Amino acid sequence: MHNPTTVIVGVGLIGGSLARALRTRNLATEIIGVESNAASARWALDHGLVDRIEAHIPDNADLIALCTPSDQIAQWVIDLAEHPATVIDVASVKAPIVQVLDEHQQRFPRFVPCHPISGSEKSGPEAATEDLFNAATVVVTPGAETDTLVKSQVIEFWEALGASVLEMTAQAHDEALALTSHLPHLLAFAYMQQVEADHLPLTGGGFRDFTRIAEANPELWWRIFALNKAPLLAALSGFGEQIDALAQAIEQDDRASGLAIIAEAAGRRETYAKHD
Amino acid sequence: MHNPTTVIVGVGLIGGSLARALRTRNLATEIIGVESNAASARWALDHGLVDRIEAHIPDNADLIALCTPSDQIAQWVIDLAEHPATVIDVASVKAPIVQVLDEHQQRFPRFVPCHPISGSEKSGPEAATEDLFNAATVVVTPGAETDTLVKSQVIEFWEALGASVLEMTAQAHDEALALTSHLPHLLAFAYMQQVEADHLPLTGGGFRDFTRIAEANPELWWRIFALNKAPLLAALSGFGEQIDALAQAIEQDDRASGLAIIAEAAGRRETYAKHD
Repeated sequence: MHNPTTVIVGVGLIGGSLARALRTRNLATEIIGVESNAASARWALDHGLVDRIEAHIPDNADLIALCTPSDQIAQWVIDLAEHPATVIDVASVKAPIVQVLDEHQQRFPRFVPCHPISGSEKSGPEAATEDLFNAATVVVTPGAETDTLVKSQVIEFWEALGASVLEMTAQAHDEALALTSHLPHLLAFAYMQQVEADHLPLTGGGFRDFTRIAEANPELWWRIFALNKAPLLAALSGFGEQIDALAQAIEQDDRASGLAIIAEAAGRRETYAKHD
Repeated sequence: MHNPTTVIVGVGLIGGSLARALRTRNLATEIIGVESNAASARWALDHGLVDRIEAHIPDNADLIALCTPSDQIAQWVIDLAEHPATVIDVASVKAPIVQVLDEHQQRFPRFVPCHPISGSEKSGPEAATEDLFNAATVVVTPGAETDTLVKSQVIEFWEALGASVLEMTAQAHDEALALTSHLPHLLAFAYMQQVEADHLPLTGGGFRDFTRIAEANPELWWRIFALNKAPLLAALSGFGEQIDALAQAIEQDDRASGLAIIAEAAGRRETYAKHD
């Protein structure tokens, strides 16, 4: 699948970055955008992200990247069931998509669910960057029906963009991401409700970093929360227990317990966080 | 108080940065360190942060900056009651210090409680930087007994280091900081308890920023939590209500409420956060 004709459905931050990355690395013969938002389509065309915009997916497409909102992916895959192209998506929540397809009468051996763990609080093709996937992890969650050759091609595709590919089940992905990404957003959104204008001078770098993810696209994040409801609420429940333990230590002046929790956190942060 | 003989008690990150800032801006004739940690004292001396290390505060000191842990400040101020120098501190929690001094038989008109809102997850004089206070906010919480001239001198002192000074009561300071600084740390510490080594590849920039403050000095943070217990637990309680509201919206598929909360958070972050 070298230099295929690539169709990007949804030329926003992720789709636009995919276009830029493919261009820079010369990994597509032709890049065709399918984009219902006229302004985004115009911008992507004017800035050379795509070679042309089409209303429908052309028959000669080799690779179709669905970069639309999560809740539209399954229907796109179903509509493309007869198309010979390899189909990937970039949605943040995988199990609901896989579940709809599993329950469908047709099989989808050429669809490989993907989630590049990279993003930004920004959105739209204007924010697209050619290196969004470089050094990122891309999770792929193929099912038993997924064509092995297609899966290998998709893994190579992401690796050619500089990403590391990790294969896991859709369920395991959604549970892990509920913790590593969705819960922090939930906490940051809730936290910001208490912050008023006159707190601004009383904030420092810690506040700035801690709250950065709160400046996100509300529609996108409500959709993620709604789609990954059960794993997210489970992660939140676990967080509640941890908060209760720390609050109890403070309440009861229990220095040993409180210090142990904080030291555990500091140690894990030092070990687990990628280089700052 | 131009170019005074300055004594810095506690030459760690903050004390060391104060020393560096005074040096760079040529704002002290002589900088004397009082530091019980032999390694820190040695380092500060060897790297020219201080001119000399003394076991006791010299009589000719003009300005004494207490950069020791919060729970040692009040005793230092009491011990220095007869010293003619201006005394400042840099503790993150003010009311417990002010309360001890208010209940003391002596008055402390030359002590001005200060809190420079700047810091780092790092600690020790090795991490000291000359620009830690530049463009930072410094809160001063003088009492009715504070000498007006001394207060003005302290305000000028911080402004000469590039800081903006904000005057408020110790109680108002502690309540605001419980929300803007202590609560985010509490949340980040609790959050990290659930994060395991195999989550690492599944984290991105959002996780990295959100958790940065968890890599903090455990002793320091336990002390802050213990000292600012009531305002912190009040801020946590308010946060709990916000989390419950958002969790309920997710639980009940209440898109309108959930989206309103997220949009409110995104809007506040955009308005309130200092430039990223």
